Amino acid sequence: MESEVRGYIRSFPAIFERAKGAMLVDEQGNEFVDFFAGAGTLNYGHNNDRVSKALVEYIQNDGVVHGLDMATSAKKRFLQTLYDVVLSPRNYEYKVQFTGPTGTNTVESALKLARMIKGRSNVVAFTNAFHGLTMGSLAITGNNFYRDEAHISRSNVSFMPYDGYFGPDVNTLDYFRKFLEDGSSGLDLPSAVIVETIQAEGGINVASDEWLQGLEQICREFDILLIIDEIQVGNGRSGEFFSFERSGITPDMVTLSKSIGGGLPLALLLMRPELDQWKPGEHTGTFRGNNLAFVASVETLAYWENNDLSDAIHYKSGILKEELEALAVKYPDLNASVRGRGLIYGFEIPEIGIAKEVSRIAFEKGLIIELSGASDQVVKFLPPLTIDEETLRKGIGIIDETIGEILETKQERLSEEF
Amino acid sequence: MESEVRGYIRSFPAIFERAKGAMLVDEQGNEFVDFFAGAGTLNYGHNNDRVSKALVEYIQNDGVVHGLDMATSAKKRFLQTLYDVVLSPRNYEYKVQFTGPTGTNTVESALKLARMIKGRSNVVAFTNAFHGLTMGSLAITGNNFYRDEAHISRSNVSFMPYDGYFGPDVNTLDYFRKFLEDGSSGLDLPSAVIVETIQAEGGINVASDEWLQGLEQICREFDILLIIDEIQVGNGRSGEFFSFERSGITPDMVTLSKSIGGGLPLALLLMRPELDQWKPGEHTGTFRGNNLAFVASVETLAYWENNDLSDAIHYKSGILKEELEALAVKYPDLNASVRGRGLIYGFEIPEIGIAKEVSRIAFEKGLIIELSGASDQVVKFLPPLTIDEETLRKGIGIIDETIGEILETKQERLSEEF
Amino acid sequence: MESEVRGYIRSFPAIFERAKGAMLVDEQGNEFVDFFAGAGTLNYGHNNDRVSKALVEYIQNDGVVHGLDMATSAKKRFLQTLYDVVLSPRNYEYKVQFTGPTGTNTVESALKLARMIKGRSNVVAFTNAFHGLTMGSLAITGNNFYRDEAHISRSNVSFMPYDGYFGPDVNTLDYFRKFLEDGSSGLDLPSAVIVETIQAEGGINVASDEWLQGLEQICREFDILLIIDEIQVGNGRSGEFFSFERSGITPDMVTLSKSIGGGLPLALLLMRPELDQWKPGEHTGTFRGNNLAFVASVETLAYWENNDLSDAIHYKSGILKEELEALAVKYPDLNASVRGRGLIYGFEIPEIGIAKEVSRIAFEKGLIIELSGASDQVVKFLPPLTIDEETLRKGIGIIDETIGEILETKQERLSEEF
Amino acid sequence: MESEVRGYIRSFPAIFERAKGAMLVDEQGNEFVDFFAGAGTLNYGHNNDRVSKALVEYIQNDGVVHGLDMATSAKKRFLQTLYDVVLSPRNYEYKVQFTGPTGTNTVESALKLARMIKGRSNVVAFTNAFHGLTMGSLAITGNNFYRDEAHISRSNVSFMPYDGYFGPDVNTLDYFRKFLEDGSSGLDLPSAVIVETIQAEGGINVASDEWLQGLEQICREFDILLIIDEIQVGNGRSGEFFSFERSGITPDMVTLSKSIGGGLPLALLLMRPELDQWKPGEHTGTFRGNNLAFVASVETLAYWENNDLSDAIHYKSGILKEELEALAVKYPDLNASVRGRGLIYGFEIPEIGIAKEVSRIAFEKGLIIELSGASDQVVKFLPPLTIDEETLRKGIGIIDETIGEILETKQERLSEEF
Repeated sequence: MESEVRGYIRSFPAIFERAKGAMLVDEQGNEFVDFFAGAGTLNYGHNNDRVSKALVEYIQNDGVVHGLDMATSAKKRFLQTLYDVVLSPRNYEYKVQFTGPTGTNTVESALKLARMIKGRSNVVAFTNAFHGLTMGSLAITGNNFYRDEAHISRSNVSFMPYDGYFGPDVNTLDYFRKFLEDGSSGLDLPSAVIVETIQAEGGINVASDEWLQGLEQICREFDILLIIDEIQVGNGRSGEFFSFERSGITPDMVTLSKSIGGGLPLALLLMRPELDQWKPGEHTGTFRGNNLAFVASVETLAYWENNDLSDAIHYKSGILKEELEALAVKYPDLNASVRGRGLIYGFEIPEIGIAKEVSRIAFEKGLIIELSGASDQVVKFLPPLTIDEETLRKGIGIIDETIGEILETKQERLSEEF
Repeated sequence: MESEVRGYIRSFPAIFERAKGAMLVDEQGNEFVDFFAGAGTLNYGHNNDRVSKALVEYIQNDGVVHGLDMATSAKKRFLQTLYDVVLSPRNYEYKVQFTGPTGTNTVESALKLARMIKGRSNVVAFTNAFHGLTMGSLAITGNNFYRDEAHISRSNVSFMPYDGYFGPDVNTLDYFRKFLEDGSSGLDLPSAVIVETIQAEGGINVASDEWLQGLEQICREFDILLIIDEIQVGNGRSGEFFSFERSGITPDMVTLSKSIGGGLPLALLLMRPELDQWKPGEHTGTFRGNNLAFVASVETLAYWENNDLSDAIHYKSGILKEELEALAVKYPDLNASVRGRGLIYGFEIPEIGIAKEVSRIAFEKGLIIELSGASDQVVKFLPPLTIDEETLRKGIGIIDETIGEILETKQERLSEEF
Repeated sequence: MESEVRGYIRSFPAIFERAKGAMLVDEQGNEFVDFFAGAGTLNYGHNNDRVSKALVEYIQNDGVVHGLDMATSAKKRFLQTLYDVVLSPRNYEYKVQFTGPTGTNTVESALKLARMIKGRSNVVAFTNAFHGLTMGSLAITGNNFYRDEAHISRSNVSFMPYDGYFGPDVNTLDYFRKFLEDGSSGLDLPSAVIVETIQAEGGINVASDEWLQGLEQICREFDILLIIDEIQVGNGRSGEFFSFERSGITPDMVTLSKSIGGGLPLALLLMRPELDQWKPGEHTGTFRGNNLAFVASVETLAYWENNDLSDAIHYKSGILKEELEALAVKYPDLNASVRGRGLIYGFEIPEIGIAKEVSRIAFEKGLIIELSGASDQVVKFLPPLTIDEETLRKGIGIIDETIGEILETKQERLSEEF
Repeated sequence: MESEVRGYIRSFPAIFERAKGAMLVDEQGNEFVDFFAGAGTLNYGHNNDRVSKALVEYIQNDGVVHGLDMATSAKKRFLQTLYDVVLSPRNYEYKVQFTGPTGTNTVESALKLARMIKGRSNVVAFTNAFHGLTMGSLAITGNNFYRDEAHISRSNVSFMPYDGYFGPDVNTLDYFRKFLEDGSSGLDLPSAVIVETIQAEGGINVASDEWLQGLEQICREFDILLIIDEIQVGNGRSGEFFSFERSGITPDMVTLSKSIGGGLPLALLLMRPELDQWKPGEHTGTFRGNNLAFVASVETLAYWENNDLSDAIHYKSGILKEELEALAVKYPDLNASVRGRGLIYGFEIPEIGIAKEVSRIAFEKGLIIELSGASDQVVKFLPPLTIDEETLRKGIGIIDETIGEILETKQERLSEEF
């Protein structure tokens, strides 16, 4: 009955029934390690105990579940917690807009607001960017798989090369700056630049702190708003709550979704107070105030009251990096390279098709792991942040075993041919 | 801390803590009758007992809460129930696409698919239409409050007059047909027509069955896809599950959201099987498979296993219509008119500002009721479908009392002026 | 060697060598009466004696032939003559912009200026409008023959019904007004309305004076600029110099081309002085100041120093109308209708193909006459304004004879079939 | 009376009355050397004797002056001459389309045809490109002076860096290729690339033969049409008839205007025969067949019957280059650089404003010379190709004198300040 548009279900052909932490269980009772984490939605694991307990309590007390954008006690607690635990300690004074509860909704809101404020329709996005698939977000998403002549308006977006796009020796910001400074370059002054600090769907491309600082500098010079899309790599994925924290930049707007709702649908836009130029009701949506997500989020934001989680991420990040680099060395025929930060890592295998094979066979062995990059050539490690060391190592072990088998089979095939 | 974009919170200035059925309770313990129903999301009432029970059980059993579009037991049960209870008895063979869990996401998916299939970029929408606020949906939404030079691409949409737009004597389909038949009219042949059978945000404008049949006929003749937007008036709001059932038309696509998730975020697109031309993964989104919504929905769809709910809606619809028409007669100075069907009714008060006053004062008296129409001139009655007769009458009574007071005050002011 | 895009050459398969007044002569010495007049470019006839003499003199004196937009003596004389003979006697204070020397260039300039002044991107055009085929003009041209998915941006134009579009009993301005007054109609407030008083390519549709006055009234009320496209029906075609004169309206901008250059390429935009908000050099083009056209135009504008030409047009218009109506009566099987004003008349033959046959056979008999309308169903009478009565009657006689033959042949074919 | 949009008239404040060869004479009898040549329209000089004689004869014989796209003897002769003298000797088999008689019209036609053939809406243009100002052409013109939020549709164009844009060490085609090869770059596969071999308005930027060859190679690889815009630098300006001849590439389409009409308005599109997919009449325009321009062109094309003109251009090119480079050395404080080919040369003076001063004062001394580049920082040498050596040297002498004076005055001002 379901549409052919299904994607993940094809890669991971099982019917899942239960889940806990970093483990999923299908209807036959088979267990799977989850290195996918709902593409960044399950940073705190499946059915986190604190979350489950709070949800049950809330429902049993007949808490308001759906309330559009009306004020509820749950929303009040969420805003207070976000301020106390995340914004205030980092000296951010952002205002919060609840958009429709998906990433693409908050991106659309950010673009709409930026264009309205600056009165300029152009926006700059980067090569290999992924920001969502509604019409406004799609226009700034690079992958041509999603773009079709008939349904996409290509207007009002200019793509610039991301950090490292022309190799390590070219500073791509020089290109961008040249286009901006030259009044005849054909680049219309954009209202905003939107960028991911780590391109997750684009192949785990990591922008350096210097590049981000340079980008912020350009935005200030040319009066352009800087929007950081934190949908996939915010919420602690990079090691800190916001992935841009360590670079020291202060975006004008930040889009948040995925894990910000504690695993439930929620999306929000942070914006500097002077940018909050919306008229009441100008951007609406039915599910903006998902109260169950507020309840869940309050529980998961609690992880940021101290440095324990952050420290644990850095510790496990070290393991992940070390182990993946060891794999690259162990299997030199793959010509694999390792990229990432925190608990998002890419293991790129240039030969097209191999990475896909890795994901497929690893699933048979009990590991759920996704691909990314323009040709699905990057195996994408995205475990829950709360994963324990043992399960992490177990998952990596499955990858090791899988690659070994694939190369062996390949070897045999080659031998047979002679 | 929250953005100025907030809307409803301004009309209904209270912090709500608990809710049940058609009642909301604020932090001070004040009770409010809910004639708003989450703009159509709470057709089965707040914290419906069956839903709450099922959710608690699911969470306590560590059911998969978030799974992108992977298969889960909850999704399987939902699809089966939708088929058994809704589609099969009505002889519909639609396939189901889970889009991002908001109405605007499903509208964007429908437009994208239609343009892709037909290879034509134009789409026809109607005056006073409301289909959402992401860029693709905004382009087909008529209200200029949401449209701004800088952020909207006005492309590829033509607006045609809705049923009754030029008064009862003009068949607006004749206009549409003339534009289609004339190769020099400037109207590019659209890939699709998208229409609401009852325009909820547009002021409770009800399309007649004949008009809908004529529209379907035009679509068939000119090879145009017919998309019915059921987001606000589907899910039983009109008396039947789908609002278009009684007209006998068979849309090519149907957008569903709001109450389809049993009060939790969910949206889906129904499409005729031959239109399911998506490539795997071509339209994605993080929260497509909201498993808690699947669990909730299975419980609320159960209401459609027999005719009890439908009969109850028709019964209460009669009361609502009768009482509102009585109010229009009782207060002739208002020049009010009554429009609607099922449990969605509009009470239009032409003098700008009065309707707003009604909503404001009614809230003080314990009733939550929204406005609609281009100038907020229509009081919009949208109680839960499960409301009991007593509460329904109580809410209408508050309106009666409110109007009385407003007119009295006005009278006094006028007297004073002389 | 020439592209397949050729059009007229196919309808009129001869190689023309010489021309004078209303007559063309081909290389074999065959003579043709010209009821086409260069689609309105030869209002004063081929090789008008005064024009030829002035051109020869200018060239022999080494007058500046090409000078971009630099000042020349020829340009000075042209502007002075335009003022003395056309603008001043009619109390118009327009400023003059020389655009590229084609109609579509002046239309593009008008749209660009209007959007810039009002800061609104939308423009309203009318059903069956024809304004040219560069991208900006094409967007406001109704005929779908010229419009293709891949090359046209459909954006920022709304089509409204022209006078009489829904028959004589419907005032189409009511339709337009309703869309403007309703803030949720989906019509974005346009910067300008552009309209032809008589749609020449669209099938010789004549707007009534009342309709034009009503349109001007709407433009004033809603702060919309009114652009009259006089490219084909200006320059005396309607009987007065400007076709809108007799309705008493004062357009904000007027586009002129075709005969304004005395038969040579020239186009200009008239605009109210306060609308002249161009920055120097903001809209340029190589052939803006076609000095030979200035020289030619000075000679032909002289026709407007007194009323002789105007009187003669009205006299010949009477003959043309009378004779065409007599033909419609004489051949009732055609169900023909006659429309027009001045020396632009349409003879509509509803049965598709017959009008084409008329044009083809008339050419064999020595008459050049074009078609118009969405299905080429209208024979379009457009003789030079300076045609003598005898030649006019001769041309009409050829049409009479042609129709007679066509109907006879048809009759014979029908008889044979039985 | 004339619009504020006037440009050149401000730089050259005189009323010109007569002209001959490379000289203009104003109403007071003052003579000016013309290093502007109608921006490339007067390659064969003002009032070329052969042209004047032929025009007078044609007019006196009542030759057809205006005939839309009908066949005339003049058109036949023109096509035959173009074939015999230009196309055939160079082995080009292009078909010819007569568009409206301005450069921007032929560019619009080329874009429309390319998009229609390939069914892709995107087009690639280059930084600092200038292709005209109607809406389609403006979209591919880089200079933001002409681009305004309200009137321009920015859609369906991607700008790539022109040869040398990032300095001599960066091959900008690598940049373009990377965007094309990467399916996630955000660059939609274009239907066509449009490029000038020498950017005239953009500051006399000269693409190397290798770069053009590389560009053609990319177009072939990725199935993209290659359009060369020869409007300003074709017609012998570069030394050969077509500026791209010497690089050995074969464009799919070539746009020609300016001098192709022998000084009168004419524009045409050359296209490979298999690309001539127009339907009859699909792209029209009133002044497509400007017969006087055909007559004039036949005379000027005669210059290409042998190599005399080409040899003369190369000889004078040598003088111009040498003298300009000598000036750059003579006035080292200017930091001037010299760029160009054939008889189009740029003398770039980086300090903003100086070039403008040079043009202004040179005019007072009897030389008409224009500027180009994004900041008008390039003095643009564009004399008629037929200029005699003495007049050429005289014009350069005026520039020498002018610069000397400007620097002296500057020196004095500086001294005074101390």
